Amino acid sequence: MDTSEKNVITSLDVARHAGVSRSAVSRTFTPGASVAPATREKVLASAKALGYQVNMIARTMNKGSSNFVGVVTAGFDSAFRASLLSPIAHSLSRRGLMPLLMNADDPAQLEQSLHALLSYQIAGVILTSASPPLSVVQHYLDRQIPVAMINRGHELAGAEVVGSDNRAGGRMAADALLKGGARRLAFVGQGAHNFSSRERWLGFSQRLAEVGVEAQTVFNETPGYQGGMQALLALFSQGEGPDAIFCATDMLALGVMDALRFTLHLQVPQQVQVIGFDDIAQAAQLAYDLTTVRQDSVQLAQRAVGAIVARGENFMRVAEFEPVPVTLIERGTTKIQK
Amino acid sequence: MDTSEKNVITSLDVARHAGVSRSAVSRTFTPGASVAPATREKVLASAKALGYQVNMIARTMNKGSSNFVGVVTAGFDSAFRASLLSPIAHSLSRRGLMPLLMNADDPAQLEQSLHALLSYQIAGVILTSASPPLSVVQHYLDRQIPVAMINRGHELAGAEVVGSDNRAGGRMAADALLKGGARRLAFVGQGAHNFSSRERWLGFSQRLAEVGVEAQTVFNETPGYQGGMQALLALFSQGEGPDAIFCATDMLALGVMDALRFTLHLQVPQQVQVIGFDDIAQAAQLAYDLTTVRQDSVQLAQRAVGAIVARGENFMRVAEFEPVPVTLIERGTTKIQK
Repeated sequence: MDTSEKNVITSLDVARHAGVSRSAVSRTFTPGASVAPATREKVLASAKALGYQVNMIARTMNKGSSNFVGVVTAGFDSAFRASLLSPIAHSLSRRGLMPLLMNADDPAQLEQSLHALLSYQIAGVILTSASPPLSVVQHYLDRQIPVAMINRGHELAGAEVVGSDNRAGGRMAADALLKGGARRLAFVGQGAHNFSSRERWLGFSQRLAEVGVEAQTVFNETPGYQGGMQALLALFSQGEGPDAIFCATDMLALGVMDALRFTLHLQVPQQVQVIGFDDIAQAAQLAYDLTTVRQDSVQLAQRAVGAIVARGENFMRVAEFEPVPVTLIERGTTKIQK
Repeated sequence: MDTSEKNVITSLDVARHAGVSRSAVSRTFTPGASVAPATREKVLASAKALGYQVNMIARTMNKGSSNFVGVVTAGFDSAFRASLLSPIAHSLSRRGLMPLLMNADDPAQLEQSLHALLSYQIAGVILTSASPPLSVVQHYLDRQIPVAMINRGHELAGAEVVGSDNRAGGRMAADALLKGGARRLAFVGQGAHNFSSRERWLGFSQRLAEVGVEAQTVFNETPGYQGGMQALLALFSQGEGPDAIFCATDMLALGVMDALRFTLHLQVPQQVQVIGFDDIAQAAQLAYDLTTVRQDSVQLAQRAVGAIVARGENFMRVAEFEPVPVTLIERGTTKIQK
């Protein structure tokens, strides 16, 4: 389709129809620009009557930067990452920004896609998963494009990092399991290089060390439900097995619970207590009723968008990392005695 | 950020560095354009050496249409809709198209957002949920912007519709429950105006009518897990209650199962058989082990993208609706006797 085939209404048409200057039309459609209320109303009425649309592409050409923000995520079917998408989209659109979706599921395609984003003069990139290689992220920073990463380490100078208080969550889990009478504790994490898993394990094991307890630890390369099942069977493959397990994600915890109940025929929480992390919707379903550490996904999303905007205004700003608080949600898989 | 602040590499710089014409550079970066392999290699090497990026915004200005495709979805936390996002993003990017994400969760914001898409000269819109009002969709069609809707009715002339064979799925569910010895059948759907629910109910009840059986029917306004629990309690609020239930989505079925087991203390499938629809990841988890009708989300996504592209080439084309086949996945919530 070519522009010439369409009957395009321009700002000049609106200006003529409203009896105002072209600049008044432009100011009416520029967020924050000053225009008299009466003029503004005339412009809006004429724009509506004529079916006028602002041409964001032309605006982007003139400004040299767009209001697209790349949102890079692996696994839309990860319930926690999916729960971030909605508040990210909402928060971006409230600031007049538009989310461009990048799928990081296919590593071969990802690098190409991330490079492609550069050709759209994007205003920033938000990474919601651990997948994208930092070398590609560095390309953005080299071009002074703001980057915000959620729940990742502070590995790149100049990148904004937003994250939950993962260590505090690990400590909460340790305390809850100990209060429930746990004696043989275990930790199940996802991938030895996964930043969030490592932080949650650090908080958990440090708290246990303070009371002189050591935990069995499994970092499983397979993520999610299947990974939880595998890790649980590994924990019980020798010796007595744990009586309390802290899992770095809810999906790992669901796999752990089902392997306990349906493969080993053990009772939760009577014989083995389980705590997860995230508070995805499934955790509240009666078949699981999982005690977990809740992440505040709305807060994480808003901070990531805020960080992109702040760095867009001043690329050399000093980023301040302030962890987002987490909350213990007590349900049926622990036996906390108060 | 202003263009002038950046050291922008142009196609002319690349042409000079590679010792070729500017047009050769342009053709190298245009999908499908002809260029000698040796020239192409020189251009790519120089582009890499100089850090050249194609300016898609400038291209869009010149062409008058962009390669953005709006993807409108409500509830990223709906597992089935989330399972569509990944293949849609993948399929778009294979065709050089870029997904712009629109969140339909907030009805007040949605209409505004859908209008905003028009200002990006988008190449098309894919709707994965029933939320957007058809009046807004009509705006796109009026501007000859291709629209593809997944699992919705054929309500709008000129819109492409892609969907599963919902009626065949309903018939499969009826047959499976009857083979398992069901005598008192029931259907649980989501919202009386939901197209997919209605189609699945039609297939189910028509098949039952053929063998002279009638089903109790509940169309619940609340969707998902909570809706399933409410519907189940309504079904058992008077009389004996059903011994077999077909649910229009897996999430409804999970709520139905948990209310049966944990509220009414009935056994699944011994006392009540349950079948869902979608085959989301949770259906395979041991705590549910749900028999269900699988939708082919990859096929649905590819067809939606294909339809957008075909209509982009010929806006007046006659759309052909060919339902995507569904498959019965037998698990532990039915007792099919073979």
